[in-house]
Amino acid sequence: MSILDSDRTRLWRLQRIIAPELERFDRAYAELLRGETPLIDAVCRHILQGKSKRFRPTLLLLAAKADGPVPDHAITAAVGVELIHTATLLHDDFIDEADTRRGRPSVNHAWGPSTALVMGDYLYSKALAALSGAGLFDAVALLAGTTLKMSQAEMMQIETQGDLDIPEETYLEIIERKTASLIESACRIGASLNPAAADHQEAFGAFGHHTGMVFQITDDIFDYLGDERRLGKPTGQDWEEGRITLPLIAALRQAPAAAREELLAAVRVLEPGERHTAWPRVKAFVLEHDGVTYAREVARRHGERAKAAIAGLAEGPQLDLLAVSVEYVLKRLN
Amino acid sequence: MSILDSDRTRLWRLQRIIAPELERFDRAYAELLRGETPLIDAVCRHILQGKSKRFRPTLLLLAAKADGPVPDHAITAAVGVELIHTATLLHDDFIDEADTRRGRPSVNHAWGPSTALVMGDYLYSKALAALSGAGLFDAVALLAGTTLKMSQAEMMQIETQGDLDIPEETYLEIIERKTASLIESACRIGASLNPAAADHQEAFGAFGHHTGMVFQITDDIFDYLGDERRLGKPTGQDWEEGRITLPLIAALRQAPAAAREELLAAVRVLEPGERHTAWPRVKAFVLEHDGVTYAREVARRHGERAKAAIAGLAEGPQLDLLAVSVEYVLKRLN
Repeated sequence: MSILDSDRTRLWRLQRIIAPELERFDRAYAELLRGETPLIDAVCRHILQGKSKRFRPTLLLLAAKADGPVPDHAITAAVGVELIHTATLLHDDFIDEADTRRGRPSVNHAWGPSTALVMGDYLYSKALAALSGAGLFDAVALLAGTTLKMSQAEMMQIETQGDLDIPEETYLEIIERKTASLIESACRIGASLNPAAADHQEAFGAFGHHTGMVFQITDDIFDYLGDERRLGKPTGQDWEEGRITLPLIAALRQAPAAAREELLAAVRVLEPGERHTAWPRVKAFVLEHDGVTYAREVARRHGERAKAAIAGLAEGPQLDLLAVSVEYVLKRLN
Repeated sequence: MSILDSDRTRLWRLQRIIAPELERFDRAYAELLRGETPLIDAVCRHILQGKSKRFRPTLLLLAAKADGPVPDHAITAAVGVELIHTATLLHDDFIDEADTRRGRPSVNHAWGPSTALVMGDYLYSKALAALSGAGLFDAVALLAGTTLKMSQAEMMQIETQGDLDIPEETYLEIIERKTASLIESACRIGASLNPAAADHQEAFGAFGHHTGMVFQITDDIFDYLGDERRLGKPTGQDWEEGRITLPLIAALRQAPAAAREELLAAVRVLEPGERHTAWPRVKAFVLEHDGVTYAREVARRHGERAKAAIAGLAEGPQLDLLAVSVEYVLKRLN
């Protein structure tokens, strides 16, 4: 069993608790991810064959879980959130010119940029049509605001590409909008559909926000440390594409002035296409000046705040489960 | 006064009737089209400076117009529809690699494909957030279905690119989804917000559908005839990009077998990049075998059906105005 499998097993243990819900989710997702023309259908089947960890649906369904089975509306909401997430991945792969996604060729790579762009639009519209069709208008309103934030974050990434002076606050604002906002909305929507949690949507939202921050910061750390879960995936992709993330931001702040100036002098002269040549040096700099240590600590604190957000709530099955979820995300760092 | 100006004047005469509404629309549109970061704001200002004919908002507001001023919700709905339309233009310009749009450099050309893609997503989310925020959930549901159709149409265009055997039915299905569906939704939403027309949403929708069909067929004819409104815009762009439209479909059907086979033999050997070399021949073929005449007749019939759709309704100010609208679209052909 590879380490990748062992990670999936950990998530699977968590997901086992809502196995009936996830089965209903899988059926509803496959039912919706069908195409009206041969090309749309081929791309839909390609996407379905990619392995998603279903992290956002898992959190939504955990938040929606009371004593009995969750209502059908929660399944539809989970499908909507996963469709929106998948739509953003198609557009991200277009922007990053990524060759692979979820262990398969990216849609952008396999069918070209126009198809990736249009299929992203298609999945997003399909999500909203499904949510509207089920009368989930609060979820639609929340998710419209969320996808607005996500596109703002994409624009901020374009704006700050390669900017070595990016403040930590700007980085945090970007990942909050890019990643945490959708996970926050997933938890909030799940709670809103759970009679036992509907009064605590704010708390569930805060839980999702902090869990999402942990999720993205750990992802950004993996780009420096290497991630055993992503075997064969090279490190340094964020650096190469000009995304200056928390480990480097922290290291630049923490390093002695001379070391910082030396690094900046070496990398500022690089053209975007030459960035990868400096990767070993950037990585060594980040490790030497405790950039990863700092980022790990920020993630850990968000993890604590995630658990604190739901700790004060009345006991219920979904509360234990969510505490396990945040442990899962935090443990990715160990 | 150029012919371009005279066309704008014709539309302006129509729009004068709802001038107070369009002024409110312009203010609300400019208010919403602001950015949260310098780059988003720059692109928003660029888009605002482009001249939109505001055809969809005009129809929506005409349908919403009763005796007094239209309600604020109708203005918001019109802004939402125009934002969605603009979002699709940004994505279209990427797909078609268009250099200009509304007389200005396209966003794709000025800022690059990633910005065009993300700003399209941004405007679409902004539209849905505005509509949801105003509680216009029926409009959101309708427009989610509409944008789903629009992305299906884009995929069908990719699928049938360069396909000289495309049936007329497929062409009609594409333009129905691509163009007519949004105009239909605009009219339907307008009527739904008008107490005097709310019982006739189907009829207003049918009016919008047929008006939209006229709109797109005339556009496709202009690509053969040249369009005085689009001075300096070359003909043959659809052909060059592999969009086989009604004039050519009809000419291929109507031409004697020998002439058809001769043309097909000449163009089937062309690589996509060589298509433009055959344009004079394709254009001559279409005109000789009455492809434009046929398309014009199809458009005219849709115009008749548009007027018929609203003819049976109780008299009211908006009915006359809509009849004038369809005349405007039809007159583009004279």
